[in-house]
Amino acid sequence: MTNDTSNDTGHDTDHANDTVITVDPDVPLVRIVREFDAPKERVFRAHVDPDLMVQWLGPRDLVMTIDQWDCRAGGSYRYVHRRGDEEYGFRGCFHEVRPDELIIQTFMFEGFPDGVALEKLVLEDLPGGRCRLTATSLVDSFEGRDAFVASGMETGVIEGYERLDELLVG
Amino acid sequence: MTNDTSNDTGHDTDHANDTVITVDPDVPLVRIVREFDAPKERVFRAHVDPDLMVQWLGPRDLVMTIDQWDCRAGGSYRYVHRRGDEEYGFRGCFHEVRPDELIIQTFMFEGFPDGVALEKLVLEDLPGGRCRLTATSLVDSFEGRDAFVASGMETGVIEGYERLDELLVG
Repeated sequence: MTNDTSNDTGHDTDHANDTVITVDPDVPLVRIVREFDAPKERVFRAHVDPDLMVQWLGPRDLVMTIDQWDCRAGGSYRYVHRRGDEEYGFRGCFHEVRPDELIIQTFMFEGFPDGVALEKLVLEDLPGGRCRLTATSLVDSFEGRDAFVASGMETGVIEGYERLDELLVG
Repeated sequence: MTNDTSNDTGHDTDHANDTVITVDPDVPLVRIVREFDAPKERVFRAHVDPDLMVQWLGPRDLVMTIDQWDCRAGGSYRYVHRRGDEEYGFRGCFHEVRPDELIIQTFMFEGFPDGVALEKLVLEDLPGGRCRLTATSLVDSFEGRDAFVASGMETGVIEGYERLDELLVG
């Protein structure tokens, strides 16, 4: 993966909502930028309402179950993604939840407990009732960051946001 | 501040418990290493028991008050340091609390809410009933990290651990 792994297909002309995933050259951080055809309030709600989260987060072939969900500053979460017998648990705590604008949280895949990330989600309105999401994930080593990117997270992120597009239309 | 800001005074001969603060050359992280003349269980307890925390955390001329303290994975905290009319609030959430060994948490000075850090505290036993603490603080930019170091945190950290030495003797 290079420093720009955009799957850009010409959003200047047709506003295709491409997911642009880049690795920062200076710090061990992954940055995801994605636009949505919905105002930021609706995209924010899809990130904090557990009944909506389970409908879009992650790739299509995984089933998501939420064990714990307390999306407020000082709250925490745990969810599991399942594919047949495979089971992947994720958990973290919420440092800040600012309605319609910002979520700062920790994130950990339980299969790799040493790789705790500090994640920041920022939402900004765009003209035409659209919005832009910028999600960053910071870890303490470039090796850890690159292993995370190489783990196949890209597919899950891109498919997840396509599912979120569908949910926002519905 | 250089890459090694040790205030070393020859711990090979007298086991002086010097606080060694270094900035990582590769990632925006500060690392603090400190040894204590006490087993890790006692140093851990001084980090999780709020009645002990207020007796040592920070410089001597500040008074610490804890507003919120729920030191467990998924819990959160807020405390205030006061010097006369000056008031400095700090808050975060606990991602992981593994007894006697590890604490992973977020940390934010409320006067600079964009500078959220991911902090990790690791305790290891040493021979002779002593232990070593390694505390790292990761942020998302070198500028932010260097501003944190330049803010005078060094004095507070060194004095705080000297106060902790006194508490552990008492």
